[in-house]
Amino acid sequence: MSREHAQQLITRLKSLKPTLHNKDFLLTWQQSDENLRALLLVAETLENLHIGNVSTRVFDSGLAVSNFRDQSTRTRFSYAKAANLLGLTSCDLDESKSQIAHGETVRETANMISFTTETIGIRDDIFLGHGHQYMKEVSEAVEEGFRENVLAQRPAVINLQCDLDHPTQSMSDLLHLQKEFGSLENLRGKKIAMTWAYSPSYGKPLSVPQAIICLMTRFGMDVTLAHPEGYGLVPETIEKSHAFAKESGGSFTQTDNMAGAFADADIVYPKSWAPFDVMKERTELLKSGNNAGLGDLEKRCLENNKRFVDWQCTEDLMKKTKDEKALYMHCLPADITGVSCETGEVEGSVFKRYRLATYREASHKPFVIAAMMLLTRVEKPADLLASLCENPRNRRPG
Amino acid sequence: MSREHAQQLITRLKSLKPTLHNKDFLLTWQQSDENLRALLLVAETLENLHIGNVSTRVFDSGLAVSNFRDQSTRTRFSYAKAANLLGLTSCDLDESKSQIAHGETVRETANMISFTTETIGIRDDIFLGHGHQYMKEVSEAVEEGFRENVLAQRPAVINLQCDLDHPTQSMSDLLHLQKEFGSLENLRGKKIAMTWAYSPSYGKPLSVPQAIICLMTRFGMDVTLAHPEGYGLVPETIEKSHAFAKESGGSFTQTDNMAGAFADADIVYPKSWAPFDVMKERTELLKSGNNAGLGDLEKRCLENNKRFVDWQCTEDLMKKTKDEKALYMHCLPADITGVSCETGEVEGSVFKRYRLATYREASHKPFVIAAMMLLTRVEKPADLLASLCENPRNRRPG
Amino acid sequence: MSREHAQQLITRLKSLKPTLHNKDFLLTWQQSDENLRALLLVAETLENLHIGNVSTRVFDSGLAVSNFRDQSTRTRFSYAKAANLLGLTSCDLDESKSQIAHGETVRETANMISFTTETIGIRDDIFLGHGHQYMKEVSEAVEEGFRENVLAQRPAVINLQCDLDHPTQSMSDLLHLQKEFGSLENLRGKKIAMTWAYSPSYGKPLSVPQAIICLMTRFGMDVTLAHPEGYGLVPETIEKSHAFAKESGGSFTQTDNMAGAFADADIVYPKSWAPFDVMKERTELLKSGNNAGLGDLEKRCLENNKRFVDWQCTEDLMKKTKDEKALYMHCLPADITGVSCETGEVEGSVFKRYRLATYREASHKPFVIAAMMLLTRVEKPADLLASLCENPRNRRPG
Repeated sequence: MSREHAQQLITRLKSLKPTLHNKDFLLTWQQSDENLRALLLVAETLENLHIGNVSTRVFDSGLAVSNFRDQSTRTRFSYAKAANLLGLTSCDLDESKSQIAHGETVRETANMISFTTETIGIRDDIFLGHGHQYMKEVSEAVEEGFRENVLAQRPAVINLQCDLDHPTQSMSDLLHLQKEFGSLENLRGKKIAMTWAYSPSYGKPLSVPQAIICLMTRFGMDVTLAHPEGYGLVPETIEKSHAFAKESGGSFTQTDNMAGAFADADIVYPKSWAPFDVMKERTELLKSGNNAGLGDLEKRCLENNKRFVDWQCTEDLMKKTKDEKALYMHCLPADITGVSCETGEVEGSVFKRYRLATYREASHKPFVIAAMMLLTRVEKPADLLASLCENPRNRRPG
Repeated sequence: MSREHAQQLITRLKSLKPTLHNKDFLLTWQQSDENLRALLLVAETLENLHIGNVSTRVFDSGLAVSNFRDQSTRTRFSYAKAANLLGLTSCDLDESKSQIAHGETVRETANMISFTTETIGIRDDIFLGHGHQYMKEVSEAVEEGFRENVLAQRPAVINLQCDLDHPTQSMSDLLHLQKEFGSLENLRGKKIAMTWAYSPSYGKPLSVPQAIICLMTRFGMDVTLAHPEGYGLVPETIEKSHAFAKESGGSFTQTDNMAGAFADADIVYPKSWAPFDVMKERTELLKSGNNAGLGDLEKRCLENNKRFVDWQCTEDLMKKTKDEKALYMHCLPADITGVSCETGEVEGSVFKRYRLATYREASHKPFVIAAMMLLTRVEKPADLLASLCENPRNRRPG
Repeated sequence: MSREHAQQLITRLKSLKPTLHNKDFLLTWQQSDENLRALLLVAETLENLHIGNVSTRVFDSGLAVSNFRDQSTRTRFSYAKAANLLGLTSCDLDESKSQIAHGETVRETANMISFTTETIGIRDDIFLGHGHQYMKEVSEAVEEGFRENVLAQRPAVINLQCDLDHPTQSMSDLLHLQKEFGSLENLRGKKIAMTWAYSPSYGKPLSVPQAIICLMTRFGMDVTLAHPEGYGLVPETIEKSHAFAKESGGSFTQTDNMAGAFADADIVYPKSWAPFDVMKERTELLKSGNNAGLGDLEKRCLENNKRFVDWQCTEDLMKKTKDEKALYMHCLPADITGVSCETGEVEGSVFKRYRLATYREASHKPFVIAAMMLLTRVEKPADLLASLCENPRNRRPG
């Protein structure tokens, strides 16, 4: 059944003309709707082939380099799995995050790691104004290397989380929503509440809420962004969300009232993040190595967080949602009250009810990353996937 | 010749009905004799195919995750080799050992690393009462994940050393004995002395002696456990050994006399370990982060060790063994007097004579781990191995 | 076209009788001219097959172990790529560089990591008199292991940089020169200036200049080694260079005048290194863990370096070279004045002009390492490469 479903997905994929070949995947808002739809279809096809025990090992050799400038277990594993699914070998650059390299160092390193490389996955989400910039520098460097005969091929840069966007997360979330609600089309008119939530830690990146509002507004959803005053996002992402909502026939609303955001919501995504201004200040302190200043900032920020300790996804709040049973989403790990902390983003009983759903939500990520790899590195992805279905090879013995 | 021998082994394997498919391999004493015999046969078959240059790459893709909560070079490499032999890609979780995660964190992480994973190898031998417990938690988490459609398959948890057992070591040791004595049946009535030996270090895990006594008593051997007073093992493993000896027609004896244990022994396994009580105290101190207490415990323990500095495998002691030439065994690295330390577990000249034998003893480990992977992940391992023999593919060019 | 060129190279390779099978690759000066020529041909063939999208995955499974006793990003990646090109899985030993293990520890570890291993790549360039010695110990250990039936095959030890030589670098450099000047034969009579250059750091290894003078003198080149007084190399390499120059009809000259070395040079290789005597003193201090002494030595050495701050590859110096446009070479990363440091090895504008050329120079390294792997591990490399051309398999989808 999974193979048959895969074939149906491939048929739909064949009607699209994605333009990602030999390009990067950096920000969803740089991508056409067609590219995003192709990405979902490829990811879903790969999932079905995986379940149907059909090998998707289309590369005979080649490296998938990763560079995690921030610690990561989940994304590291997702990237390694995606590479493995396609026959690539993942290889971690393990660059110290303490140096923000630029200019010749970036150009040179990007070429040195790319001689037989298909993709470069980068996570760089600590410094506001830097992560996306760094990815663009790497992209330009390998573009030049390919043009100037340094590289036999042009590796694709894949954004595994930057200061602006977290496309592998948001596209996995979108795939989750598509499955939960039956289709992309069914998401039209659904209300999703992307809300800030209290956490006893500080400095969580802004990329998840930014990724969610910029992506979900494109599919006709009614997106509400809720956060306490002072916890704003990067202005560019707010503008994009307004524009996308207008274009798609959805809506984008901002509020500082969590309960209001939950009212009648079909989906809630309560998650902590640091205020934009704090992240800016933190970036300057990190750049100047001002540890005393960082300690002071953390203290102030945690104090401020405490003013909003009631921003928690409780059973009471859930009762305000559509039919009292909105879909709860989280990128994991969540700060769960009474489980991983004293008071956190979500009440224990709420999380418990949706725990397995959040695992399933996360389960799409390796396939989304593999789909990004396939679309950026293969000229005719639909034909290639079709050939995998027609002459299936087992990915594992029975 | 190796291929022919492989075929004979597969024929014997076909007469067994192992029940490891979609299960874990945690403790040898949870396994039936038939499972253990199947494991030996599969490991030996893989060795023969390897020597005969026949590829055993039965997986097209898939991850073999490892989680070493204690430092490890040898086991890490053995696991990577085993994965590579079967076509899996090893991927290390690299979780900090400083945190003993439980509950939701374990459940969540176990699922997050398992979306395309076939096996999870875990080494967790530092904390008494924790290692085996942790492996069971991971096992339950992936069992649930598979049942609840989070995972497309259920990865097998493989014990790479816990607080109770070290099955990859003891099964390699058993394979070594089988080769040295001609057959499993020939081990019946042979005397093996598992004895404590002096080391200038402290805190070595109990899992090796426990693994040896619990396994060798099952094959009709006369097992003697010797250690100074106060260096006892986990009581459960002593009980198991008594029961197994009774069942198999062998014997299990305890003594505090090293020379007595060596008398007429066919095999000696002199190795240092920490006292059970010390490990319990150490576990509490580690959990509470009491570094001063740990330093004090180490000092006391090393002092106590010195009282038994004559527990050394000397030439004189070796003369007491069967025909003065018992087989010397060690899991490596050994503390060798005059080589790696001033005074250690074994006299330099004794070790020198058996040095290559201990290397061969260790050489089985990657194949034992690969056999665990194959038996837990493949429904009909004998048929699969037979098909490898019938249509052999070179594993390397000539 | 790349495939056709590959076939021509293979035809030339067939006329050679390399003797590297089941051997190591440690020092170029231990290798016959024929072995070096075969190495270049195999590396170039692999490059052409890579560009022509022909798979060179000749191993079905097997490990390529690496042991970097000094930090390394570029070489680590080159080794991983080389392994991946041939179908081997790279696996890093990650031994702490703080311990200089010898004797039984080396012997045992070498065997423990080698049960299914094809190559062991080692970088050990910190301690004068140790790196090459360590590689020989590993080589003897695996030789014994193979002879004594511990290992099913004898892994090749591959020098990824030692205290004496850096063969993967110098052979890549030679391949670069061959391409830039049209052929190995065209290098005859060309003047190459291997010169010291100022750097604001200290302790850079001697292996690059030593590798260059010992290799280039073998091909009839006029090799000039220039450095300030006190910055001499290991005497053995000076002797070798004199002998090779005599044999090949080239020349080997030493000078303490950078401008003189640049005069009429076809190629310049300006690069910093530490004085031999300083490295000897440093080795003793490192061995005794004398951190105060190390700090003092660094201070003295940096002071001394400053006396030679004018040893910089400037535009003015470049004007003295043949037709004012000698080929500039560097092993990267270079200390570039005004780019990576205030004052360094090379003026910004000079480096900028040759930047892409140095990237191309480096691009050969993975293929040179893969060629070392192939020649040491395969009995009939020419036949194997020919079979890859005759029945080409795509290394990546179109």
